[in-house]
Amino acid sequence: MKISRKAQLCNLSPMRKFHPYSVAAKQRGIRIYHLNIGQPDIPTPPAYFEAIRNFDQPVLAYEASPGMPEMIEAVRKYYGRIGISYSPNDILITTGGSEALQMLMLCILDEGSEIIVPEPFYPNYNTFVRSAGGAIRPLTTTPEEGYHYADRAKIEALINENTRAIMFTNPGNPTGAVLTHDEMRMLADVAREHGLFIIGDEVYREFIYADEPLASIGEFDDIADNAVIIDSVSKRFSACGARIGTIITRNKELQQQLLKFCQARLSVATLDQVASAALYGVDPDYFDVVRDEYRLRRDTCYNKLISIPGVVCAEPKGAFYIMAKLPVDSADAFQQWMLTDFEDNGETVMFAPGEGFYATPGMGVNEVRIAYVLQQADLERAMDLLAIGIERYNNRNN
Amino acid sequence: MKISRKAQLCNLSPMRKFHPYSVAAKQRGIRIYHLNIGQPDIPTPPAYFEAIRNFDQPVLAYEASPGMPEMIEAVRKYYGRIGISYSPNDILITTGGSEALQMLMLCILDEGSEIIVPEPFYPNYNTFVRSAGGAIRPLTTTPEEGYHYADRAKIEALINENTRAIMFTNPGNPTGAVLTHDEMRMLADVAREHGLFIIGDEVYREFIYADEPLASIGEFDDIADNAVIIDSVSKRFSACGARIGTIITRNKELQQQLLKFCQARLSVATLDQVASAALYGVDPDYFDVVRDEYRLRRDTCYNKLISIPGVVCAEPKGAFYIMAKLPVDSADAFQQWMLTDFEDNGETVMFAPGEGFYATPGMGVNEVRIAYVLQQADLERAMDLLAIGIERYNNRNN
Repeated sequence: MKISRKAQLCNLSPMRKFHPYSVAAKQRGIRIYHLNIGQPDIPTPPAYFEAIRNFDQPVLAYEASPGMPEMIEAVRKYYGRIGISYSPNDILITTGGSEALQMLMLCILDEGSEIIVPEPFYPNYNTFVRSAGGAIRPLTTTPEEGYHYADRAKIEALINENTRAIMFTNPGNPTGAVLTHDEMRMLADVAREHGLFIIGDEVYREFIYADEPLASIGEFDDIADNAVIIDSVSKRFSACGARIGTIITRNKELQQQLLKFCQARLSVATLDQVASAALYGVDPDYFDVVRDEYRLRRDTCYNKLISIPGVVCAEPKGAFYIMAKLPVDSADAFQQWMLTDFEDNGETVMFAPGEGFYATPGMGVNEVRIAYVLQQADLERAMDLLAIGIERYNNRNN
Repeated sequence: MKISRKAQLCNLSPMRKFHPYSVAAKQRGIRIYHLNIGQPDIPTPPAYFEAIRNFDQPVLAYEASPGMPEMIEAVRKYYGRIGISYSPNDILITTGGSEALQMLMLCILDEGSEIIVPEPFYPNYNTFVRSAGGAIRPLTTTPEEGYHYADRAKIEALINENTRAIMFTNPGNPTGAVLTHDEMRMLADVAREHGLFIIGDEVYREFIYADEPLASIGEFDDIADNAVIIDSVSKRFSACGARIGTIITRNKELQQQLLKFCQARLSVATLDQVASAALYGVDPDYFDVVRDEYRLRRDTCYNKLISIPGVVCAEPKGAFYIMAKLPVDSADAFQQWMLTDFEDNGETVMFAPGEGFYATPGMGVNEVRIAYVLQQADLERAMDLLAIGIERYNNRNN
């Protein structure tokens, strides 16, 4: 029995790579602070659970393939509030942002197609691109430059006849980098001039810590046919387990192609759509409270990091991740050692080693991604453990 | 902006093709009996809704990528009750049987790969196969032969160096055909001898109307590495809107490849897993009641059909569909006419025209699939409308 070539080109998740070591450490009684996975600890708004409790139909039936009309309308109104006008047909509801990405890649990539993505990037992009037969053409950035990627010359140098799209997460996962309005305008121009799709994964939209309002790739009317937004309730409402996302485009041809995949998988979970629609009715103050909390954590995390000698990182402007270069030979080896040989008062810390966030071999070897999704006190302790760990790791053979 | 070749090779759903005409007919005040979609009307067991109401965690978090352990255990125990022993690692929970099929095709098909599927088949198979770059190699059957496909010589004639798998729905959608134990043994032998995956889509397992117990492709220990089961709670528990399915295989290499796709999409909806696990705890009598109800409907539907002059169909042995050849020039033209030009006491009927269930061009033109998912009285009326419609359609120009 043969396994497909494209499956073999995919990887297991770098965030879950050290799971067996963490299980073993916990069995030895070690407490682990998890900075490796972007699972927020903020409570899901109660509106979600109330909506589900109030569901009173006797048959849990298929919903419409493009999405429950109430859910589409909730998303449409949300975009209206940030000044972007969509029609219901522009919005397809998906099983998380993940399914949105999977369907989109199947619609736009063939064997040999390329998609330009700044690296480091969200590692699952690689699986979605590979599974469609394509390859990521990485736009390499460095910690020394603050992972800045909005460079027209660098981007245009990567475009060739196989290029189908430019895709980025904004605010950025794993870097926390945020595009200015002018930078996004430039990216939009490049996409228009070269006839490429431009895909904005904007699931972290509310998590920005600067004063300038965040730009969305949906704002630029002259690239209505190029632009695709990937969105989700997972981070916005701390509802990762709902698996409700959306794919938004005004491109009629793409809508029609996506609809084939929506119909093939019949529908998205009914109750999760009912409840997610209710989430969009929460008081907008909710976002302010959450944003303030994450800003505090960002500050804690960043200040602790830059006080460690030899660390290179830029202050993240959004999302809830920070990418940093550590003064260690290998983040993989260091993480493993932290789980097998280290403890401080019975505690250690996990992060996501950086290599898996790059497509270019050899990049990111001594970088890590830290998700600041813990309460303030735990976050401080976790960052202190990282500092103690680095020092002891580098002196382990002395 | 380019659309992928593989997306262009996919089709919109034949079940939903006449949706615009049905909307127009309803606007004219026509009542439509829907025999076109397999949405059961049987109530979902209350255990589903109770489990969701009792969920009391404040954060709706990601579940484990392979599936919630309780859900995996529920599936494992269910298979144990039908005499098939699986370990937890053999079972991956998916977003419906649909995602199970999508992931499986991505894991086993490359550009140019073939998969043997008896036709007529569930049309969405085509999208999952095409999206992975492969093609369905149809094993053609006819209404005159009762859509019988378990023919070793015919199957072996279709196998070539590109063949990766044999896949079938058993009990069958759209035909209601059911394999005997000996027929399944033969298919298992062919798969083993030729080194092919053998994929049993067994989501209709409980819906059988003969006395012989149903065979499962999971029963044959000598093809443990070849066999893959696709399963779901959708039809079993009348919970289509839960979108909870499963992919089951003892093939370790395939498990590892599937896990990459499970990790890439992070997890399956948390509450739907909690509630679906509870469904597996319902009293087994539930299946007897449901089966008796569907057997009555099958009898009604079949008896009404064979009393129409010129209809060719075999008595379905399972699932809740019947495929039949009608005495009309074109099922597509007839369906359209039934929605635009026909009514009897303000009522008409919808079915799924047969052409979309075939891969071979020109096949199924005058066939239809009927889903017997209505209450007895409605089903009788719907079948009478079909009979009246056929007569008037064939005399429309007289």
